[in-house]
Amino acid sequence: MSLGRTPVLRMSTLFVRTLREDPADAEVASHKLLVRAGYIRRAAPGIYTWLPLGLRVLAKVEAVVREEMVAAGAQEVHFPALLPREPYEATGRWSEYGPNLFRLQDRKQGDYLLAPTHEEMFTLLVKDLYSSYKDLPTTLFQIQTKYRDEARPRAGLIRGREFVMKDAYSFDMDDAGLDASYAAQRAAYQRIFDRLGLEYVVVAATSGAMGGSRSEEFLTPTPIGEDTFVRSAGGYAANVEAVVTPVPDALPYDDAPAAHVEDTPDTPTIDSLVAIANERFGRPDRLWTAADTLKNVVLALTHPDGRREVVVVGLPGDREVDLKRLGAAVEPADVEPAGDADFAAHPELVKGYIGPGSLGPQGAQVPVDGAAGDGDPATVSAVRYLLDPRVVEGTRWITGADAPGKHVFDLVAGRDFTADGTIEAAEVKAGDEAPDGSGPLELARGIEIGHIFQLGRKYAQALGLTVLDVNGKQQVVTMGSYGIGVTRVLAALAEANHDDKGLAWPVHVAPHHVQLVAAGRDASVFEAAERIAAELADRGVEVLYDDRPSKVSPGVKFADAELLGAPLVVVVGRGLADGVVEVRSRVGGDAEQVPVDDVVDAVVGRVEALLAAAPGRS
Amino acid sequence: MSLGRTPVLRMSTLFVRTLREDPADAEVASHKLLVRAGYIRRAAPGIYTWLPLGLRVLAKVEAVVREEMVAAGAQEVHFPALLPREPYEATGRWSEYGPNLFRLQDRKQGDYLLAPTHEEMFTLLVKDLYSSYKDLPTTLFQIQTKYRDEARPRAGLIRGREFVMKDAYSFDMDDAGLDASYAAQRAAYQRIFDRLGLEYVVVAATSGAMGGSRSEEFLTPTPIGEDTFVRSAGGYAANVEAVVTPVPDALPYDDAPAAHVEDTPDTPTIDSLVAIANERFGRPDRLWTAADTLKNVVLALTHPDGRREVVVVGLPGDREVDLKRLGAAVEPADVEPAGDADFAAHPELVKGYIGPGSLGPQGAQVPVDGAAGDGDPATVSAVRYLLDPRVVEGTRWITGADAPGKHVFDLVAGRDFTADGTIEAAEVKAGDEAPDGSGPLELARGIEIGHIFQLGRKYAQALGLTVLDVNGKQQVVTMGSYGIGVTRVLAALAEANHDDKGLAWPVHVAPHHVQLVAAGRDASVFEAAERIAAELADRGVEVLYDDRPSKVSPGVKFADAELLGAPLVVVVGRGLADGVVEVRSRVGGDAEQVPVDDVVDAVVGRVEALLAAAPGRS
Repeated sequence: MSLGRTPVLRMSTLFVRTLREDPADAEVASHKLLVRAGYIRRAAPGIYTWLPLGLRVLAKVEAVVREEMVAAGAQEVHFPALLPREPYEATGRWSEYGPNLFRLQDRKQGDYLLAPTHEEMFTLLVKDLYSSYKDLPTTLFQIQTKYRDEARPRAGLIRGREFVMKDAYSFDMDDAGLDASYAAQRAAYQRIFDRLGLEYVVVAATSGAMGGSRSEEFLTPTPIGEDTFVRSAGGYAANVEAVVTPVPDALPYDDAPAAHVEDTPDTPTIDSLVAIANERFGRPDRLWTAADTLKNVVLALTHPDGRREVVVVGLPGDREVDLKRLGAAVEPADVEPAGDADFAAHPELVKGYIGPGSLGPQGAQVPVDGAAGDGDPATVSAVRYLLDPRVVEGTRWITGADAPGKHVFDLVAGRDFTADGTIEAAEVKAGDEAPDGSGPLELARGIEIGHIFQLGRKYAQALGLTVLDVNGKQQVVTMGSYGIGVTRVLAALAEANHDDKGLAWPVHVAPHHVQLVAAGRDASVFEAAERIAAELADRGVEVLYDDRPSKVSPGVKFADAELLGAPLVVVVGRGLADGVVEVRSRVGGDAEQVPVDDVVDAVVGRVEALLAAAPGRS
Repeated sequence: MSLGRTPVLRMSTLFVRTLREDPADAEVASHKLLVRAGYIRRAAPGIYTWLPLGLRVLAKVEAVVREEMVAAGAQEVHFPALLPREPYEATGRWSEYGPNLFRLQDRKQGDYLLAPTHEEMFTLLVKDLYSSYKDLPTTLFQIQTKYRDEARPRAGLIRGREFVMKDAYSFDMDDAGLDASYAAQRAAYQRIFDRLGLEYVVVAATSGAMGGSRSEEFLTPTPIGEDTFVRSAGGYAANVEAVVTPVPDALPYDDAPAAHVEDTPDTPTIDSLVAIANERFGRPDRLWTAADTLKNVVLALTHPDGRREVVVVGLPGDREVDLKRLGAAVEPADVEPAGDADFAAHPELVKGYIGPGSLGPQGAQVPVDGAAGDGDPATVSAVRYLLDPRVVEGTRWITGADAPGKHVFDLVAGRDFTADGTIEAAEVKAGDEAPDGSGPLELARGIEIGHIFQLGRKYAQALGLTVLDVNGKQQVVTMGSYGIGVTRVLAALAEANHDDKGLAWPVHVAPHHVQLVAAGRDASVFEAAERIAAELADRGVEVLYDDRPSKVSPGVKFADAELLGAPLVVVVGRGLADGVVEVRSRVGGDAEQVPVDDVVDAVVGRVEALLAAAPGRS
C-alpha cells in the first residue's frame, strides 16, 4: 500500500479513538501504545486490523523496503497466500511445519495452506520461466501477507499469526554468485534499517526449517526481545541458538582411577551431590564443584510425523539446558522436558540418579520397540544419549549410578561410556569464550527484524529447478532467501521510539509530520489554526489538525498529541492574542514561541531539517 | 502496492517470458494475453501469481481507486483476511455462504474463515471506536485480498478464488445520510472508471447474500461478460437478475368454461402440445401458441444447511427458466435442475405432464415427510409451487393433467389452482417492456466491476452497532457497502484494450509508457538506444528497453512489444544510419520517423499528450 495524496487530517473526523488504559492482553510498550493510540486493533489472537494512522506508518516502512529492494536490483512480484499442498509436500515442509501451518481444504477436498514463506513457489516460478544460465542471476521479492499458526502469539505485532513480510529470493549458477547475491541483500538490509533509524546487530544464525548453510539475523537490541544474542569485543556476534561450543582437547586418562560407585543418599540435586562429595569424598587439591558433575536431563522430542522420542542430554552440572538452543538443534522436531508418562515408559531412568550406564550405546541392552512401560528392564527400548561438546574423551565425572541414592565417581568419558552424539543444548553464559577466540561473550536480547539465508540447492533440487550451463548441461540452481518482518519492524520502531507519554516517531515513518492543536475557546484560534493547517499542507507538510471543539480541553488534546507521536506539535492557543504560536518537539519537548506569520516557514524548515537529518535513500 | 522509483527496465533482465501459444485453460482474451505476455501465472485454479509487469499495472489501478476514495472522504484501513467465525455466525453468513467460503481451524480447533467480504468486521470496528451521532457519518475502505471458493473459477482474473478488492463501508444515522454516502461512493466509482477509461453501465441489481435494499452494479459491456443486463431507450438499466416482471391486471373469468382434461398422447414438449392443440382442439379466433401453455419445471434447491428441496416453477411455455435469475431469487439456496433421484422421490410428478393438480396448495394431500420415494402417493411430501408473475388470476392455461398423455385445458388461475408464491425465474427477452414502462428492453452482456449496496440496518442490528442520537437515545446505525473488483478491473481493461497481436494498454495503466527496441546488429544501434532510454527515464518516462542481443531478431522484439502492449514503441534500427528513429503507436500503428536528436523530446511530448488526453484526477 502507499499513501495517496494527503489532505489535512482532522481529529474531528479521523477514524481514531485514543485509549487512556492499556489493553488487558498487552505486555510490551509497542503493543500497548499502538492499540492505545488507535493504530491497530486486535481482530483475533495474533491477528490485527490496521486503522488509518497505523496504515500510514506501515506504508512508509514498506516504501523504504521496496525502494531499497529495487535499488539492489531485485524485481517485485506477488504470490498468492493461499497455495496448494503439492510444492510444500515435495520439499517436506507440509509436514515439517507441524501445527505452525494453517491448513485447509477447498470445496473439492484439495489440500491448501496459508503460506508461511514462499521458497517453493519462487523456485517453481523461476523453473517455469527460466531455462538458461543466461537468465541468471536474478533476485525476486514480494511484500506480502504471511500466516503462521504460532502456539503463543504475543507482544502484539512482534509475534503475530497474520503479518506482512518482505521476502526475497536469489537464483544463481554457483556459490560465488550466491555469495554476491547474498552480499547485495545484506547491504540492502543495512540501508533499510539505517534509513528507518533502527539500531541493529547482524548475528550468525541457525537455518532452522529453511535448511541451507550460511545464515545471519538482523536483530534490534531491546530487553523485550525474544531472541538472545552474544557479542565479543573482538567482533563475534551470534544468536545464542547458533553459538557453537568450542570443543576442548581430549585429556589423557591412563592414570585415571577406576570408576567407583558410592552411596550418596538424598542427593537428587547437583547442589546436594556436590555438598556430599566434598564432605565424604573430598579431594586434597580442590573442592568438587557443579562443573565436576555430569547432569543427565531427560527430554521428549515430538517428530513431525507425531512420533514421541525420549532422549537424554548429558552436560556439566554447572549449566542448564537452554530449550531454545536445544530446539534449534533438533528441528524440525519439537522438544519439551519429559513428563511422568515418559519416565513411566522408561523405568531404567532413575529420577535424580540417571547415569550413562542406562543410556545410549551402553544402555541399549535390548533394543526392542513396543514393549516399553511394563517395568521389565529387559524389554525397554534404547534411549538416545547426547552429550554436551565439552564432555570430551578423558574428562572425569561424578554422575548418577542408575540406582536410588548412588552416584559413580571418576567415570571417564570414552573409557567408561560413550554417547550417540553431541548436541548444542547447554546454555551460553556471559563470560564464555567466543567460538572464534575473540574474547569473552556478553549476552543481550533483541527482536529479529531480518533474516538472510544461503539456502543452496535444497529447494532447487527438491523441485527440479535446473538450467543449462555454459556447456549445455543441466545444472541445479543455488538459492538464497531473505526476509524482513515488515509489521514487526513497525513494532520495533515503536519499541525504540516511545516514552511514558506515548509514541515518538522518527519523521520519516511518522503518520504525519505535525500535530496542530487548536487550544482555546475563541473562534480566532480555530480560524488561525485552520489557515496554518492549509498552508502547511500546501507546502507538503503532513498535518493532523486537532480541530475538536473547545469543550475538548487543551490538556486532552496535548495528551493525544503526545500519545500519537508526531515529531512536531504546533499549538495555537493563548499566545495567539500576543501574535505567537508554540512549536514543540515531541522528543525533548523543547518549545519555541514563533510569530504567527512566521510559523508556516518555521515548521516547514524544521520538518525539512528533520528529514534531511534522517539517513537518505541509497 | 505502489511503484517505487522506476529505473529503465531491460528485457535482458526483466523477469518475464512471453509465450507464443495460448495457455490450454484460457478461453477469454484477457486471460490468454495476460499469461502470454508474462503478467500473471496460475498458481492453482482461480489463484494467480503476479509477475513484475502485471504488478505494475495493478499498482496503477489501485492508485486510481485509492485516490478517488480519499477524494470522496473515505479513510483507508486494512483488515485481516483470516478471521474468526463468530461475527459471521452472528449475521448468519458463516452458513449462508455455503461451500463458497474457505473455512479452516487453527491449532486450538478454533473456527476461522478467509473473508469473502468484510461487512461484519467493519461493523464491529465502528462499534468498537464510535459511540455518538457526532462521530458519524464516516466511510471507511480497504484494498485487500479476498477469498471465495468458487465452484467454477474461470476466465483468469475475472472469476478467481483469491483476488484483490476495494471494499468500502458507510455508516450513517438515517436514510438521508445513507443516501448521501451512497451517492458519494457512486460518484467516486464513476470517476474511477472514467479515469481508467473503462466503459461502464450502472444497472439496478439484486442485493444477494448482502441483504439490504437499494443496490446497483457497474458493468463493463463485453460479449464475454458473465452478467446479462437490460437497457431501455427510456433510461432503464438493470442486471437481468434484478428485472421485476410487470404484473398484468387480473382477468375476469366468470364466463370461462370449466377446465377439461383431454387426451394428448406423445406430447412431452411444448411444441408437440401446441401442435396437437391446434390440430385437435383448435379455436375459431386464433391459433394456440406456446404462450397459452403453462410449463411446470422441476428444480432442486440446496439450502445452506444442506437440505435439498424439490420445487416446481410454473411459467408461460414461451419462456425458459433463467437459472441465474432463479438463483438470485432463491439465495442463499443454490438451485439446479431436478435429477432422477428427485423425480424418484416425488412419483406424483409425471414427467412431461406435470400440472398444478399435484403441486403446492392443491397438491399437498398428505404433507408427511420421510416416506417419499416408495411409490405410494398417499405418503409423498408436498412440493412447493412457485408461479411466474404473469400467471395472474383469471389467466387460462393448457397444462399437464398429472397423467401420461393427458393435458388439461381452460385451467384458470385463481379458480382452479393457486400457488405457494410467485418467483422471478423466467428469462427476460429482448423486446420485453421495461418495468418502468420506458420502452422495450435490449439485452447485452457485461463484467461486474463494481457493486454498491444500501445495506440498511441488517448488520448493525445483528452485531449491536448503536450510537447515541441527538436525544441521548441508542439508535441503530445504517450502512452501505461498496465494492470494486480491482484485479477484475485489470482484466476488464485487458479485455477492452487488446487486438490479435496482444495487449494495448491506455497510457495511465500501462506497465511502462514506451517499449524501446534496439533492432540491429551494430554496436551503434545499442549505444544510441541505451542513451535514449536513459534520457527518457531522466525525463520521467517509464521505459522498457529491449536490449537483448542481436541474435534475437527484430521480428521477435516487435512481436513482444505488441504483445506486452505499451502505448508507444520506439525502434532504433536501420534508420539510425540516416539519423532517424521510428516512433510507433501501439494502437493504430501509425509510425513516424524522427531525427535521432529529437526523439527524446518527441516521445516525451507524445507521452504527455496521451496522459493529458486521459481523464484527470478528481
